[in-house]
Amino acid sequence: MMLEKISSNYCFDGEQLRFRHDSEVLSCSMNFSIYLPKAAVRAIEEGLRTSFPTLYWLSGLTCTDENFVQKAGAQSIASELGLILIIPDTSPRGEEVPDDKAAAYDFGLGAGFYLNATEAPFNKHYQMYDYICHELPSIVEANFPINRDAQSIFGHSMGGHGALTIALKNAERFKSVSAFSPICATTNCPWGEKALSLYLGDNRKSWLEYDAAHLIRHSKNHIPMLIDQGSADDFLKDQLKPELLLAACQEAGYPVQYNLRPGYDHSFFFIASYIESHIRFHHEILTGSKIV
Amino acid sequence: MMLEKISSNYCFDGEQLRFRHDSEVLSCSMNFSIYLPKAAVRAIEEGLRTSFPTLYWLSGLTCTDENFVQKAGAQSIASELGLILIIPDTSPRGEEVPDDKAAAYDFGLGAGFYLNATEAPFNKHYQMYDYICHELPSIVEANFPINRDAQSIFGHSMGGHGALTIALKNAERFKSVSAFSPICATTNCPWGEKALSLYLGDNRKSWLEYDAAHLIRHSKNHIPMLIDQGSADDFLKDQLKPELLLAACQEAGYPVQYNLRPGYDHSFFFIASYIESHIRFHHEILTGSKIV
Repeated sequence: MMLEKISSNYCFDGEQLRFRHDSEVLSCSMNFSIYLPKAAVRAIEEGLRTSFPTLYWLSGLTCTDENFVQKAGAQSIASELGLILIIPDTSPRGEEVPDDKAAAYDFGLGAGFYLNATEAPFNKHYQMYDYICHELPSIVEANFPINRDAQSIFGHSMGGHGALTIALKNAERFKSVSAFSPICATTNCPWGEKALSLYLGDNRKSWLEYDAAHLIRHSKNHIPMLIDQGSADDFLKDQLKPELLLAACQEAGYPVQYNLRPGYDHSFFFIASYIESHIRFHHEILTGSKIV
Repeated sequence: MMLEKISSNYCFDGEQLRFRHDSEVLSCSMNFSIYLPKAAVRAIEEGLRTSFPTLYWLSGLTCTDENFVQKAGAQSIASELGLILIIPDTSPRGEEVPDDKAAAYDFGLGAGFYLNATEAPFNKHYQMYDYICHELPSIVEANFPINRDAQSIFGHSMGGHGALTIALKNAERFKSVSAFSPICATTNCPWGEKALSLYLGDNRKSWLEYDAAHLIRHSKNHIPMLIDQGSADDFLKDQLKPELLLAACQEAGYPVQYNLRPGYDHSFFFIASYIESHIRFHHEILTGSKIV
């Protein structure tokens, strides 16, 4: 698998990198970003075989891999703690990839919803679940010093939905999951209903495997889960609906740490304000260490 | 002076705000951003008359006020230390404002160079020196709890040039100055020569009051000065030329703390990596405190 380096920037004594590659699963060319902390850069330079705990970040509607890299301020704490960050794009890309008819922001390009589409014409390219769970990991694990036994996943909004559903379906693989302002129940909100009906068709039963609240209700393995939600988020009531996820957790006896943050909205200013606490949460679980 | 609020986001328990106003000095409508740390938000809410130390940030070529706000990660440490951040735009704006003939990035819109233009047609709008030194301060001081006796200034690239020249000409007002990758000698580099000739005309003597190295050579009051420069900066040799500033400092006996950072480039990834150290530098001087 050929990786073409698009850019490379020193950042907090580590390296912020961006690559392009051909995706077989998505049938298109894709970009992703990866942050290597100082310790990983040094290990690579010195030819050491050390591997590092790794976090996958899934972004929200309209984002590419670049928004998080530029706006979340995650590199500082990732470098301090020695964590690798992997940031995929949010959908297949390219002129040949079908988009929303009206080019709306909530479906198609920039809105892959981290699922495997079954409906034409979307099923040819929109296989983001397989891309995130299989193809991208195989690429980054072949090229970077990733500790396969110490991986977690987190994300924002649509990416919060992605992180939760992927972690719940792969609880043996991800040691912890967290989300900022996640879409908690795709089968019960306008964003989700639009996306699932177009990607998956009319059979609503098939939608349930991409609904975080539903998956929680049927989960067997419980991994640590952290959610932060701003109280001034414009999408809170109609789209995100954390009350449905919290009810499912209560029903299933699934432990969740849920923080409602007064005054915060849906923006990257919210993510930046709490990114350190999320990264520390994962780090503690991935390394078994408690750093205060 | 009417301020129109464009946006407001909670950020690190403070508020990131953006305003629009009519500028008399620039004869156009302008935007600026301001960050209020947690302590200032609380003081305003409680009706207290406390005022806060304040940093002006001047941005580089092509930037608006938004780049720094979104990418530098400055709010975290500003909130922790209780500092107000004021981030102006980099030039006058609007369809009536003359731009570079070829709409190049290094002159005109987004490239005001923090000077008062004397040449037509630029002299009508391009009065950024007066805007930064007089009009904007009068506006923010009338509307926010700014401690007039505790102000410093910093910036990046063209904004590093702006911060240095403005501080050197107003050493009684600014208690300290710092810069990332500044244009150190506008009269000796292509960016500067283009801008100064178009804004100020052919009389090169008139250019000298906007040349940091020249001003250092003729400065009387020495305020603390910190400069960070990446060694992998593509503009280092031809445009930034810190060696000219360092030579001037040596000649004038002007104390400067200069850090050459191996591997870092001209991007916001560099700024983000060292923004905390710059803000701590200013805070220590503005408050007379040493926080480790």
